[in-house]
Amino acid sequence: MSHSETANTAANKPKKARILIIEDNPDHWTIIQNAISESFDSPVAVRVSSAEEALEYLQDAQDMGTPLPQVILLDLYLPARHQGWQVLGTIKSQPAPVSLIPVVVLSHSTDPADIIESYDRGASSYLTKPSDLKAWQICFQTLSEYWWDAVRLPESRSFQ
Amino acid sequence: MSHSETANTAANKPKKARILIIEDNPDHWTIIQNAISESFDSPVAVRVSSAEEALEYLQDAQDMGTPLPQVILLDLYLPARHQGWQVLGTIKSQPAPVSLIPVVVLSHSTDPADIIESYDRGASSYLTKPSDLKAWQICFQTLSEYWWDAVRLPESRSFQ
Repeated sequence: MSHSETANTAANKPKKARILIIEDNPDHWTIIQNAISESFDSPVAVRVSSAEEALEYLQDAQDMGTPLPQVILLDLYLPARHQGWQVLGTIKSQPAPVSLIPVVVLSHSTDPADIIESYDRGASSYLTKPSDLKAWQICFQTLSEYWWDAVRLPESRSFQ
Repeated sequence: MSHSETANTAANKPKKARILIIEDNPDHWTIIQNAISESFDSPVAVRVSSAEEALEYLQDAQDMGTPLPQVILLDLYLPARHQGWQVLGTIKSQPAPVSLIPVVVLSHSTDPADIIESYDRGASSYLTKPSDLKAWQICFQTLSEYWWDAVRLPESRSFQ
């Protein structure tokens, strides 16, 4: 199956994908930036490096009326997992539209307890960080094809 | 990108994908069965046609200790949307592990209110039903590549 076939399945492909990445590792952010630039058309990818910065960014976007991210990628260990869970819980307990934004955990951890706890706290899905550059590219290609080509994201005119 | 490349990104690809499909339209179920057989390796796809049957199936699986579905596909209008939302809300309010199972809404509706309400009630994502057989196959290929190749599902030894 070619990528173009997949892209044709959805009529609502956004011209600009808006992604918030909560990631405290600068090397991983460099890799993620590169993978995003290869998998998205004109992406707006914003990185914050802590739970506090993430919540501040979302609050500022609402206060200023700027578009919210369509999907949030969350590194769980920031550097401890309780910080990742705190930001996940806070996002999911906000009023809509913030609470509706799908949060995809992207962590190095393969601990089943981390995976279960993330779903329990409202993560839309849990992915483990890839091990090499090629796998990072495939990972973001899959994210792009799923969330932007196939899925209908929870955005309405009122908060686009 | 070939499918085999994507499949190699995850070490936890299940030998058998277990999917529960809540779908009241027999024609759509026939199409879904066909698409599933083309996108999954030895799938166990169970169809129920109402909210009541879905909840009974999940209860029976727990009572008998048989494996729960890894992902639930939910047609929202069963035939009314309040029935889809009822089953979504009930699944998400159950104790784990049932509450942790990702529920993907697969509906003909493109109404933004339906999309927003589904995310608000705990849907992991929302897809609209494809318009032709080829698009159905692409849809299930994408579901397979995302949920089974890329994602870590919330299952542990205790309830596999």
